[in-house]
Amino acid sequence: MEVYQAIRSRRTVRDYKPDPIPQELIKKILQCARWSPSSSNTQKWSFIAIQNLDTLSELGNICKQGPFVGQAPFAVAVVMDDAPRPQLDAGRAIQSMELMAWSEGVGMCFVGVREQDQIVAVKALLNIPEKMDLITVLAFGYRADIPKPPGTPRVPFNEIVHWDRFGEMTQP
Amino acid sequence: MEVYQAIRSRRTVRDYKPDPIPQELIKKILQCARWSPSSSNTQKWSFIAIQNLDTLSELGNICKQGPFVGQAPFAVAVVMDDAPRPQLDAGRAIQSMELMAWSEGVGMCFVGVREQDQIVAVKALLNIPEKMDLITVLAFGYRADIPKPPGTPRVPFNEIVHWDRFGEMTQP
Repeated sequence: MEVYQAIRSRRTVRDYKPDPIPQELIKKILQCARWSPSSSNTQKWSFIAIQNLDTLSELGNICKQGPFVGQAPFAVAVVMDDAPRPQLDAGRAIQSMELMAWSEGVGMCFVGVREQDQIVAVKALLNIPEKMDLITVLAFGYRADIPKPPGTPRVPFNEIVHWDRFGEMTQP
Repeated sequence: MEVYQAIRSRRTVRDYKPDPIPQELIKKILQCARWSPSSSNTQKWSFIAIQNLDTLSELGNICKQGPFVGQAPFAVAVVMDDAPRPQLDAGRAIQSMELMAWSEGVGMCFVGVREQDQIVAVKALLNIPEKMDLITVLAFGYRADIPKPPGTPRVPFNEIVHWDRFGEMTQP
């Protein structure tokens, strides 16, 4: 799938078929994370590729705001260690993974693990060193047999794009 | 260009031809930012599309670590306002923009504007409200007539990808 088409057509997917994702695609998704750029090329990231169904199910129990990860056939926990811009670097790698997956028909939903007790529980489950930063868990899977939704509404182009200076909403 | 090929072949580009980027592509790049997912769909972002050559030149003077922006025909300043995860959301939008541009032959380099005096100067130049967060300035352009570099080295796959649990480097 073309880049533009992938970005334009992408939808967040939270309902998955149980079908496993081919190993070759899983490796491509992880390679796409690896090839993403990072601040000063620090690459202070680790990606935990989770296919164990018990682990996935337990993640679904822990992550109350993202129980769908318990139904996903695959998830990636994104972990940063002492990076200059951990959230920003992680965001770029996450976007590469999502677009790679989407271009081959696999959807993703981001589980924002932000409550302290959940972070502690996920780190214990996945054996993540205490000093490292758990950014998120990404659930991946083929969309269940439900129609593709219309997409969440976006703020109009002319309200978020400014020309040359903040506040100039008309293209020169 | 296919998503996988774009992610695999992407290189950071810091040397630009002066050739302008077609307006249609500029709008596609900005639309790709707009269509990126954000935490809880908050979309707390603004994108300042800069084509004014005096402004670009002045950005190059201010950003000592990224003077190449002064030679770029186009730049985007990414600004976040009171978002739950500003750096992470920005990272996703930045990656969408870079891949969109790359898929049509345009390179990008990230200028990390992190020193306080530079942030103040860029915000003044671009009229960015004080309360908002300037994440970065992205310089875009067609690569100057120099060969494509081999790409910055990456940590080996087996050192950043863990299987099911952190520390398990062998795929089950």
